[in-house]
Parts: sequence; C-alpha cells; structure tokens
Amino acid sequence: MTSSSFEPPRRVLMGPGPSAVHQRVLDAMARPTIGHLDPAFSDMMEDLKGLLRAAFKTENVLTFPVSAPGSAGMEACFVNLVEPGDTVVVCVNGVFGTRMVENVKRCGGTPVVVADEWGAPVDLDKVADTLKANPGVKALAFVHAETSTGVCSDAAALCRLATDHGALSIVDTVTSLGGIPVEVDAWGADAVYSGTQKCLSCPPGLSPVTFSKRAAEVVETRQTTVRSWFLDVSLLLGYWKGEGARVYHHTAPVNALYGLHEALIMLHEEGLEAAWARHVRAHQALVAGLEVMGLQMLVDKAHRLPQLNAVRVSDGIDEAAVRTRLLAGHNLEIGAGLGTLAGKVWRIGLMGQGADLGYVQIFLMALERTLSDLGVRVPDGAEDAAHVAWGEAAG
Amino acid sequence: MTSSSFEPPRRVLMGPGPSAVHQRVLDAMARPTIGHLDPAFSDMMEDLKGLLRAAFKTENVLTFPVSAPGSAGMEACFVNLVEPGDTVVVCVNGVFGTRMVENVKRCGGTPVVVADEWGAPVDLDKVADTLKANPGVKALAFVHAETSTGVCSDAAALCRLATDHGALSIVDTVTSLGGIPVEVDAWGADAVYSGTQKCLSCPPGLSPVTFSKRAAEVVETRQTTVRSWFLDVSLLLGYWKGEGARVYHHTAPVNALYGLHEALIMLHEEGLEAAWARHVRAHQALVAGLEVMGLQMLVDKAHRLPQLNAVRVSDGIDEAAVRTRLLAGHNLEIGAGLGTLAGKVWRIGLMGQGADLGYVQIFLMALERTLSDLGVRVPDGAEDAAHVAWGEAAG
Repeated sequence: MTSSSFEPPRRVLMGPGPSAVHQRVLDAMARPTIGHLDPAFSDMMEDLKGLLRAAFKTENVLTFPVSAPGSAGMEACFVNLVEPGDTVVVCVNGVFGTRMVENVKRCGGTPVVVADEWGAPVDLDKVADTLKANPGVKALAFVHAETSTGVCSDAAALCRLATDHGALSIVDTVTSLGGIPVEVDAWGADAVYSGTQKCLSCPPGLSPVTFSKRAAEVVETRQTTVRSWFLDVSLLLGYWKGEGARVYHHTAPVNALYGLHEALIMLHEEGLEAAWARHVRAHQALVAGLEVMGLQMLVDKAHRLPQLNAVRVSDGIDEAAVRTRLLAGHNLEIGAGLGTLAGKVWRIGLMGQGADLGYVQIFLMALERTLSDLGVRVPDGAEDAAHVAWGEAAG
Repeated sequence: MTSSSFEPPRRVLMGPGPSAVHQRVLDAMARPTIGHLDPAFSDMMEDLKGLLRAAFKTENVLTFPVSAPGSAGMEACFVNLVEPGDTVVVCVNGVFGTRMVENVKRCGGTPVVVADEWGAPVDLDKVADTLKANPGVKALAFVHAETSTGVCSDAAALCRLATDHGALSIVDTVTSLGGIPVEVDAWGADAVYSGTQKCLSCPPGLSPVTFSKRAAEVVETRQTTVRSWFLDVSLLLGYWKGEGARVYHHTAPVNALYGLHEALIMLHEEGLEAAWARHVRAHQALVAGLEVMGLQMLVDKAHRLPQLNAVRVSDGIDEAAVRTRLLAGHNLEIGAGLGTLAGKVWRIGLMGQGADLGYVQIFLMALERTLSDLGVRVPDGAEDAAHVAWGEAAG
C-alpha cells in the first residue's frame, strides 16, 4: 500500500451539498481538540444551542446538533416519536419523502403515503383529506425543501393541518435552514431536523434538530423503549441540556462542532433575512442566465427553491457527459437527478457561501463552454443576463 | 446573544478520550471540502479502507468508518446482526458492557449477562459455561479494552469460544485499536467496532467497523428489516463497497474522513508494533512514577491496558478537586471514574500521540504539585522513576 496525505482538488461546489465552506469554518475545525466534558467546551455548546435556536427561529429548549449527518437527524425524529402501531402520514414528492416512509416502517409504525409528482409541492388538500380519513394519526411528516427536485412545500400550512388533526409534525429542513425562511415556532412545528452541509455551509457530519414541548412530552410518555440507544433523546438530553453537570452519553464530535459554531456565527453576523435575500438574488441570476441559454427549470416558478435548482436536460444532451466535463475541465461540481429524475435533470446548488453572483457566473460560463464543446448550439449572453438579474433582485 | 468565535484553551488531553490530535490531522481536516461522490474522494476512501484493514489486521471486505462516534459503531454491529428473538451473551465488566446489553434489548433480542467485577477481565470459564447452558445463542459480545476500568480481556480466547459454540462475536475495540494488538482475522472476530478519538488520535466523530464474511452473510439472510435506516449495512455498502458507481446513502462527513485518513497514515508510517510498544513504554513510566508517589492501580498487572490507567484515589483525597485543579492550573485533563467507580478512581489516558514520556512527566509533575497544594504528603522522585522506566522499556 502506498498511501500519502490526501490533497483534495479545489472544487467549485454547486451540487446538492456539500456546499462551499468558508475558510473561517475550516480554520475553526482545525483548532486544538479539547475534551467533550471540558467546561470551556460546555460554554461553547450553550452558545451553539442559542445560535441554532436563532437559526430555527424557535425558543425550543430541546434544540441541539445530532452527532451524525442529516439522515441520522431524520432517524432521531422518527425513532423518538414513532412507536410500534403508530400511524404516520408521510408526504412523498421526492427521494427524502421515501426515506421518511422507510423510517416509519423501521420504527414499527404504519405509513400512510400522500404522493405528489416529483417536482410539485405537497398538495394541501390531499393531506387534509388523508388526515380526515385516518383519525388518530400520530404524526404528519413532510420535506420542506426537497433536495431531489428543488421544490418548496408550504410548511406553515402543513404544520397547521397536523395540529388541527391532533397530529405531531415532523419536518425535514435539511436544505432549507439558512437559505429560505424556516420558522419553527411560527409554524408550530414539533420535530424538525436539518443538516450542516447545505445552506449553513459547513462540512457534512452534524444534524441540528429541535423538538417542541409537545414533542418532548410525547417522548417522555412513550410506552416502549426508543429503538436506538445512540439517538435516544432522553439520554442525549443528559449531555446537551446544559443544567448542572453534563452526563456522558457519547463522545461529541468536538472539532465538527467548532465548525458548526463558527458557521452559525457567520450566519448571525449576516442576519437571516439578508442570507435569505442573497439566496433569492443568486437564484434569479441563475435562472435568467439559464433562460438565455434556452434551458428550463423543472419546478414551477411559484414553488422553486432558490438554493436548489433542478434544470431539465434538453433532448439530445448527454447529461452525464456535461457533469463529467464540468468537473474535469472546470473543477465545478453539480448534481445528477435522483430516483425517477435520474438522467432528466441537473441539480444546481446555490447554498450558503455558494449563493453568490460569482458562483453563478462561473457556472454559466463553464456550462456554455461545455455544451458548446459537446456540439450543442448555445445562445450567448447568459452571464450578462445573470448580472442584470442579480442587480434587479438587489435593487 | 453575544457570540464570538470559539478559541479553545490548549489542553494536555490525558483523559479517556479525546486524546491529543497531531497538527497533521488537524491540518488535514481543514482542507477544502469536496463532494462525497467526487472521484477524488472515492480514491481517498479506497485508500482509507485499506489503511483501516491494516490497522484492524483483517482482510474483511466490509471494513469502513461509520459516520458517527463509537456508540453508533456499537449500534451498527448490534442492529445489523441481532433480530427480535435472538439471544446474545453479553460480558459486562464495566460501563460499555452495560451499553451492549441496552443495544441487544433495543434490537428486540434477549441479553444473557456474564457479569464480572469492574476492574477484572471477562472470566473465560463463566463465558464457556453460559454458552454451553444457552444453546443457539446468536452472538457473544464483549469489550476488549474497557475504557471505564482500564482492563484488557482475552479477545482471542473469547472469539474462539464464540466460534466453538456457533455464535458470532461482537467486539468493542474502541480503546484498543492502535494502542494494543487488535487482530481481527487471527481472532476470528465477526463484528468489530472502534472509535477515532482514542489511540488513533483523531478528533471524535467516526467509528471504524469491520464485519467478517460470516457476519455479512448473517446480515444478508436476516428475516426482519434492520431497525435503523442510517446504520443498515446493506444500504451503507452501496456507498462504501467501491465497485462501480457509488450509490448515495447519506452525505459522508468529508472533512472528518480527511482527518482519519491522515491519522491512519501516521499510524502506518510508525508501524503498528512500534505504536503498541510506545504505549507500553508510556504505561510503564506512568506506573513507575505513580508507585513512587504511593498510588495504586485498580487493575492487576497482568490485565492492565497501557493506554487507559485507572488509579485508585487514596483515602482522604478529594478526587474531584484534583481533577479541577489539574485542569484549571495545568490545563491538563484526566478522567473521573464512571458508574460504580465514580469517586474511586482517576482515569489517565496515554493514547495515541499522548503515549509519550513527555506527557507522563508533565502529568506526574502536575499531580505531585496538585496533591501537595491540597495538603497531601507526596514522596518526591516520580518523574525520575518514570524516566528510568521509559528507558528500561525501550532497552
């Protein structure tokens, strides 16, 4: 074996995550490791929890980062709230909805699926009808920002439907947190999870979660033991609650938490509203450029996520060849379609630090050249359109 | 809220983990994030898997790091192998054995406990009797290096007992990997998990695991679905197997994996045997110094772990005050006793980069001064004894 230190290539990260990570966050992660029970670390954790509450717009006491990527945050929500025999209505309009279904099953629950087309938002009427038809539902689960399609669903309305029917709401905000409004308390959401590697612009590896008081009570009054020891919120609380001495549960990922702390400070410095506006500007610039090039978005204008742009691959274009050439020739990563959209769309992320006119321009230039190299006729002027769109959105 | 960037204090980490992290590993973690499906990242992952196999001394194909701390590695082993109705013999001689019992229960299995005194190794005769008395046992689970007591159990003999009785072996090597011989193939171990923050001297956050062919077959022929989606090995394999295109499961913790890769390269450069010998030298130096100071080890000489030293707190010493003063006055972290040993022992880690005469000397000097400040009479000369012991062990 001839191993040598890994020197990653410099990439422009414009896929569905991980997104570009600021040097401040990388530097924070490289600071000396200290103990996970060190008083100095505890102080940082308290501050981190406050920053997370601000990002989620919640007062929930039970707000902390799960020590693993977003999929573990999803599992933490389901495994703590769903018991064998429970019925959960799951909205499926993309890959991450199907994962929720899997989670319900593995908790011993029964999923009732409300299916919508991939690329469309969750249909509120169908959800209302399904909740009405299934009295006693334990929870309604949905994805706020579907990373596989780039569609945004109406989280406020869905949480209200859940509450109206006496069900908890479980909300995936992996791709939305920091990029578009996430208003946990205003929505009345009960269990919400996110990820670090999207609009928070942190390396992947942690999953911020927040549980409402109602959700916490449901966990406390469970009839059965939580199926996961690692993700059991009642045990995790001993470490994260921040009152009195911390009880050791598992060894927290110290350096990754330094990074998340720094990323949240950067978001706080910019301000949530400013960050959201920046994502909108970048999105409008991208769409303006793509339209000049004759490309079309998958999602209707009204339901598009600014941070995740699914673009239809026009007939006759080899979508994989485009991605391969963008990476090899321009060090630029974009995402492929997932599931039923495989081969049909590209996914272009404008997340966190990547929600920037510079990124949009680099991408449009690289795409133009790549398509042209592949013999596709492309009209000129995409970058100019992007620039105008950025200015208009700012103005 | 007045958040500011976190500047951790510089600590000498001599607790039960995290251990000292080399600058090379910190630097690696701060390199630019790239995509988890990037071909360059895939190459690094293949190299990392090879390095992990070398560290575990195994040819197991199914060897990879779980994207979460050691507790998740433990859960990955149990949740994939144990089905509802299975009986698992669990050896409990410390905290981590009790966690294994919890894991068996949460998988729907029935634990049969073989209990030994905390500080004693697992009793082979008792295990043999228990396996004999419980035909059809699915697995035997034990902790190789009990972090809560500093005792080493005979992993080779225990794995043999499992095999002889047609049971799988599940082995916790969180604290042993890289510090003392871990010989997965020679032992015939079936499912083995570890952590990064002990003798690999990496920040916490990942859990290397390895599954034998026999264990992989058991996973493949399960009757029921694995209760965890995040830790389902059959799904994880799609991403980690390294043949053909990688299938997205979850977003791997890219930068943490850079760090583990670098730490494994450092271990490879030094050589496993050299690293083990260095841990023994540091341990002997520490014990020599402690003995001069009149302090006693919890564990019999024959069963002591060099990397985790449980030291009895002599009568009349306020153990918590000692730890607090070591941290506040000397920036030196040691561990408290856990569970039944709370208040009765200190736990002194000499793990990875911390298995070093310099660390031992700093600790002995700081302990001497701290005890003296607290009015405890301490004989002089501990550091000299340590120096002599280090030299003898080297010679």
